[in-house]
Amino acid sequence: MYVILFYDIADRSLKERDNSRRIRKAVEKYLSRVQFSVFEGEIRESDLKKLKAYLRKHVHKELDSIVIYESTKVSYTDRIVIGIDKNETLFS
Amino acid sequence: MYVILFYDIADRSLKERDNSRRIRKAVEKYLSRVQFSVFEGEIRESDLKKLKAYLRKHVHKELDSIVIYESTKVSYTDRIVIGIDKNETLFS
Repeated sequence: MYVILFYDIADRSLKERDNSRRIRKAVEKYLSRVQFSVFEGEIRESDLKKLKAYLRKHVHKELDSIVIYESTKVSYTDRIVIGIDKNETLFS
Repeated sequence: MYVILFYDIADRSLKERDNSRRIRKAVEKYLSRVQFSVFEGEIRESDLKKLKAYLRKHVHKELDSIVIYESTKVSYTDRIVIGIDKNETLFS
């Protein structure tokens, strides 16, 4: 499977940073971070299942939102970034 | 073109809400909002060019980040949401 995962935060000021960091770490076990809240990569179906189970358990359902696009292979022709290009420093 | 656009905000508390809303409105002229900060849809190449020019001009380059995935057609097999499912109310 090829996956693009967006970690969509309604309002970061409302939530604890720690949980946000923990979730990012979990996602980074399987996918590469391509942007502050955007991850992508090749992932085995069994790992994707594990990751989704983890996220369903740990995400703040009233504050966070994670959107996962799944496809059988890399399918986009271009990825364009406007604004900040990668921003790991904010969390490290 | 089929496009998935993610409006990635490093820290919303640092920025004016007004600019954020203006940018969302511009994106919504062409794409459907599928999640708080995720938009997608079919778009003509000329419109995509216009939209990118607008975003390059109006985005806060030190705070915001917009990631655009382009492909020639809809190519994902599944879109999964964990957490908040659509959240327009926060901005309306």
